[in-house]
Amino acid sequence: MIVEMRTGTTPEEIDGVVQRAKSLGLGVQLNLGTEKAVVALLGSNTGQIPTDLFAVLPGVASVTRIMKPYKLASREFKAENSVVNINGVEVGGKRIVVMAGPCAVENEAQLMEAARIVKQCGASVLRGGAFKPRTSPFSFQGLGEAGLEMLSRAKERYGIPVITEVVDTHDVSTVASHADILQVGSRNMQNFTLLAAIGKNSCPVVLKRGFSCTVTEWLTAADYVLAGGNSQVILCERGIRTFEDTTRFSLDISSIPVIRKVSHLPVIVDPSHAAGHWSLVPALAKAAVAAGADGLLIEVHPNPKEALVDGLQSLTPSDFARLMEELRTIAKSVGRYI
Amino acid sequence: MIVEMRTGTTPEEIDGVVQRAKSLGLGVQLNLGTEKAVVALLGSNTGQIPTDLFAVLPGVASVTRIMKPYKLASREFKAENSVVNINGVEVGGKRIVVMAGPCAVENEAQLMEAARIVKQCGASVLRGGAFKPRTSPFSFQGLGEAGLEMLSRAKERYGIPVITEVVDTHDVSTVASHADILQVGSRNMQNFTLLAAIGKNSCPVVLKRGFSCTVTEWLTAADYVLAGGNSQVILCERGIRTFEDTTRFSLDISSIPVIRKVSHLPVIVDPSHAAGHWSLVPALAKAAVAAGADGLLIEVHPNPKEALVDGLQSLTPSDFARLMEELRTIAKSVGRYI
Amino acid sequence: MIVEMRTGTTPEEIDGVVQRAKSLGLGVQLNLGTEKAVVALLGSNTGQIPTDLFAVLPGVASVTRIMKPYKLASREFKAENSVVNINGVEVGGKRIVVMAGPCAVENEAQLMEAARIVKQCGASVLRGGAFKPRTSPFSFQGLGEAGLEMLSRAKERYGIPVITEVVDTHDVSTVASHADILQVGSRNMQNFTLLAAIGKNSCPVVLKRGFSCTVTEWLTAADYVLAGGNSQVILCERGIRTFEDTTRFSLDISSIPVIRKVSHLPVIVDPSHAAGHWSLVPALAKAAVAAGADGLLIEVHPNPKEALVDGLQSLTPSDFARLMEELRTIAKSVGRYI
Amino acid sequence: MIVEMRTGTTPEEIDGVVQRAKSLGLGVQLNLGTEKAVVALLGSNTGQIPTDLFAVLPGVASVTRIMKPYKLASREFKAENSVVNINGVEVGGKRIVVMAGPCAVENEAQLMEAARIVKQCGASVLRGGAFKPRTSPFSFQGLGEAGLEMLSRAKERYGIPVITEVVDTHDVSTVASHADILQVGSRNMQNFTLLAAIGKNSCPVVLKRGFSCTVTEWLTAADYVLAGGNSQVILCERGIRTFEDTTRFSLDISSIPVIRKVSHLPVIVDPSHAAGHWSLVPALAKAAVAAGADGLLIEVHPNPKEALVDGLQSLTPSDFARLMEELRTIAKSVGRYI
Repeated sequence: MIVEMRTGTTPEEIDGVVQRAKSLGLGVQLNLGTEKAVVALLGSNTGQIPTDLFAVLPGVASVTRIMKPYKLASREFKAENSVVNINGVEVGGKRIVVMAGPCAVENEAQLMEAARIVKQCGASVLRGGAFKPRTSPFSFQGLGEAGLEMLSRAKERYGIPVITEVVDTHDVSTVASHADILQVGSRNMQNFTLLAAIGKNSCPVVLKRGFSCTVTEWLTAADYVLAGGNSQVILCERGIRTFEDTTRFSLDISSIPVIRKVSHLPVIVDPSHAAGHWSLVPALAKAAVAAGADGLLIEVHPNPKEALVDGLQSLTPSDFARLMEELRTIAKSVGRYI
Repeated sequence: MIVEMRTGTTPEEIDGVVQRAKSLGLGVQLNLGTEKAVVALLGSNTGQIPTDLFAVLPGVASVTRIMKPYKLASREFKAENSVVNINGVEVGGKRIVVMAGPCAVENEAQLMEAARIVKQCGASVLRGGAFKPRTSPFSFQGLGEAGLEMLSRAKERYGIPVITEVVDTHDVSTVASHADILQVGSRNMQNFTLLAAIGKNSCPVVLKRGFSCTVTEWLTAADYVLAGGNSQVILCERGIRTFEDTTRFSLDISSIPVIRKVSHLPVIVDPSHAAGHWSLVPALAKAAVAAGADGLLIEVHPNPKEALVDGLQSLTPSDFARLMEELRTIAKSVGRYI
Repeated sequence: MIVEMRTGTTPEEIDGVVQRAKSLGLGVQLNLGTEKAVVALLGSNTGQIPTDLFAVLPGVASVTRIMKPYKLASREFKAENSVVNINGVEVGGKRIVVMAGPCAVENEAQLMEAARIVKQCGASVLRGGAFKPRTSPFSFQGLGEAGLEMLSRAKERYGIPVITEVVDTHDVSTVASHADILQVGSRNMQNFTLLAAIGKNSCPVVLKRGFSCTVTEWLTAADYVLAGGNSQVILCERGIRTFEDTTRFSLDISSIPVIRKVSHLPVIVDPSHAAGHWSLVPALAKAAVAAGADGLLIEVHPNPKEALVDGLQSLTPSDFARLMEELRTIAKSVGRYI
Repeated sequence: MIVEMRTGTTPEEIDGVVQRAKSLGLGVQLNLGTEKAVVALLGSNTGQIPTDLFAVLPGVASVTRIMKPYKLASREFKAENSVVNINGVEVGGKRIVVMAGPCAVENEAQLMEAARIVKQCGASVLRGGAFKPRTSPFSFQGLGEAGLEMLSRAKERYGIPVITEVVDTHDVSTVASHADILQVGSRNMQNFTLLAAIGKNSCPVVLKRGFSCTVTEWLTAADYVLAGGNSQVILCERGIRTFEDTTRFSLDISSIPVIRKVSHLPVIVDPSHAAGHWSLVPALAKAAVAAGADGLLIEVHPNPKEALVDGLQSLTPSDFARLMEELRTIAKSVGRYI
């Protein structure tokens, strides 16, 4: 941590910084320039110490953090890539894992048809929401536990692991008893009580990026799950909020190589929620694989025209089948397979 | 809702839109231009019907919503201003209500001293966090129930209502038994299970704006609480995330007149979290009152240099006393008082 | 254009809208709903008529534009893809065109070495800035005309077309006499006098996206060049400004399929300025090709450690050679070649 | 400047940093921590040295700038507030200077009527655009030199200084011969050739903030004008681009106290372009004065319903008269006058 003193600071003010650093067990090195005095604070946990503790002291102009605030999710903490195992499906290895299915579980027939299609096309995991966090209280809120049971039956019938969202701290173990992977939605990325509860479970989790959270905040949120003892964390980029309005969100494709560089966790991409329109999904899915993503989370509906939720961003079965073919070629061109 | 058809659309495609509209009970008016066909959908609930239901149909180019997605929070639903009553303190009337205190309850002595100061300076409500949602799991997480009990004692001793944050659905009634107002933090604005739980309680609530949510989404979130039967909702602008980095967030001062125009709910401003630095707080607080805010939520700490959380954005007692004097003058100049 | 009237509007107010529409030669269709009256305005040029002309009228609640404000750049204006010809190098066809070289022309030796390397690796165009728009007046501002002459010599010696930036209206013809393609930088995308001057020239132009401009504004800016008679416009996505800070800008990968859908103009990608760091450039370049970009604009420097400008985002010759190999494989997997 | 080395850096790499620093005349102080080595670079011009010069060196993990990139605009360069004198009207003193008038000069009658009104209501400067930078080439582009001449006549007739925009480097002296203050629009804030040309003129200038530029970039742009020798620079906050869509831009009210803190230049606010709707202008104008702005730039039109440009954000004469009364009261409450 670097503490820059104001021009004309006094020796007493500098000493105030030094004393506080020592009280926190930090090493100190002084740089007394002609125009500016700068104090460098050294120690292994400066990423976790609030900068405010120094910024409030008299004579301090600014405090800059050198260490990152996240720790367990960092590549410095664990150098080799983590591989998450979902009942035999490995995420983070050579294989690109495609998770596909409808946004919401609507009824048994729809889900079974979706499961059949995505399995047939080569997807490794079936997605489907039972608890739906909707922006309006007047929208369809999902089937709840009945939806979870349908997911369990689809999983059994088609032999495909399922992923579904959990929205309440107290539902974690129920959802985990039906699903093979939990999903934390974008709006809950900083619901820290939920993250802490999942940390105490052993079920793998896909942690979607908050649509206005930085990569650093995302990895710090992952630390909440990891700190609880659950190391099965998969990150999922799903677009960030910007001023651009031709897409629902702006897919931050750069986050893939950035995470690869600074973290050991696998990262997948959801092109459907980012785009908001099915016609843009194939281009984004292909870009994600080319950029190094470990998997994809894609909305597919047996009949998007009748979907209760997000029909516009869902692929039809035939569009999904065609996309899977294209993705296989791209995967091969980057030394991977689906 | 306005459905624009693609150039060269067929009569069958237009009929598809008309049939779906009729199945949803909507009125229809056709505009067959020379270049574009446009279908207007009429009805009182078009704000709540997902645009996707039409956007997925063949031949549709775009769907534009005219009605807003929020309903109960709108001025069209209720024309006159709502006034929220917090044990006798009215928010939304002539008086500008100042809620002040430390970010976190740290210990009994700190809280009592804070209560004494803010009461003396003329604040109407004491703030203090017992459950702290922190971005890192390694940061101080608040005192929890012990903090709630300290708040109860401060309230009794100084005769001042208290506001504190609730972060878990299952804590709502416990927190409401200690606090006079619940606070929903920015990161929980779209935690819909939490909002629904608060909707079933009768305790007034301050709903902070999600730092990347639009005014429309904010009012739609308020609908969750209102739809549950709790009409005591106060909105709180606390800054949005932008590219600017000299402040922690960018206070969206325009949201005050916008909300005044489209909603009947009272709106207050938190200049402390927006600014992130105590030196900017007075200018923002004065701007908020001049722009028409019904109140302020300000961080004040007996000794910011020793604060465990957010010390840099906390005012000292003497700075707060001075600011209150200035705010009284501004309030008077816009026909209000503190 | 859709004009929504306020609740309780009067027949006189509706007539005011109708009269203004007629005075502008627009067709009108009335939708008198039970809650809202809506007026649809029909005509072929409603994309160019300011919405304010109606929004200011009494009784009007909102005005929504259905037609896009851009015209000449739209796919509705020209259905088939445009191909821009740069002295024999076609942009917008099957071939993916790589433009590469240093950010700034620093001296003859550096430029010649860069030209040799990029040509050898298979790039089709040499880039190099002679006029550098720098954020600080105290930074290196480029070699100016001397730089243009070096570019001319490199072009002659290595038989490779060159692209360079133009920053002043009055330099357009001089720059065009040396360069094969003009470049308009991000900060000048809405320098309309510059765009108009380029529109009167016949030299092809790469129009970089303003880092905070929407796709719609970008295409409307392209209309300035096209309206002047210059149809040789190539769009270049180079990242937009967001809150994310691990990259210099956020590459908006979605803009590629969006532009493909709504415009006939070719689009290329500059991964170097978006990333701001050489280590992220390969992933972004590969993603761009997979997403359907027609070309790339990449910074390569013979010795980035000694670069005067943007060394951190420049690839070394060997990294560039390796990337070109990888790009060839990706290009093939999407049915194209380099 | 702080250079953080990667974990496991070698003495040779550290020496590479030290040698480069010395070659640039910088002082060096080493901090060899147990986990990280950090090199502090000291010198008076580190704000102007590109961080890339160090970031490219082997072993470097990150480079953090402590000094600001702007210099002449900083309060460290000049401690006391600058006052800009516009033919006797002082901006930056006790008086709050209101500049008002139509967005565009449309014809002599409109301008004269506008001049009469704003003068009568107490505005100190008349605004009116002769060269209009419009996002579409098919929109009204302004009257050009004929408009400048009308401004000269209005100025003479009503004895009020005028401000108008300059958009082309080669028009600076012509515009300056008619206007008392030049205006640089938001889209030209980083048109560095234009800024350099204005720097060589002696006419005062209002430098509007680029709608996606940080405060730091804005002050660095001001340095371009100041470096040329023109010290008469007034900054103008006019809203930044964010995701919020109920206003045209988001007025960054915090920029006022931030600039007051870090710069000596006067700062005014344009609430009209930020809001995009006349009904929001009064609240924003009042907030600006309360926050400490030195002036306002407000759009007023004799008849907004007939305005050729931006009618929706223009105040009517009677609304402007009422606002001026309210502003006088607010100004008084912060110890100033209009």
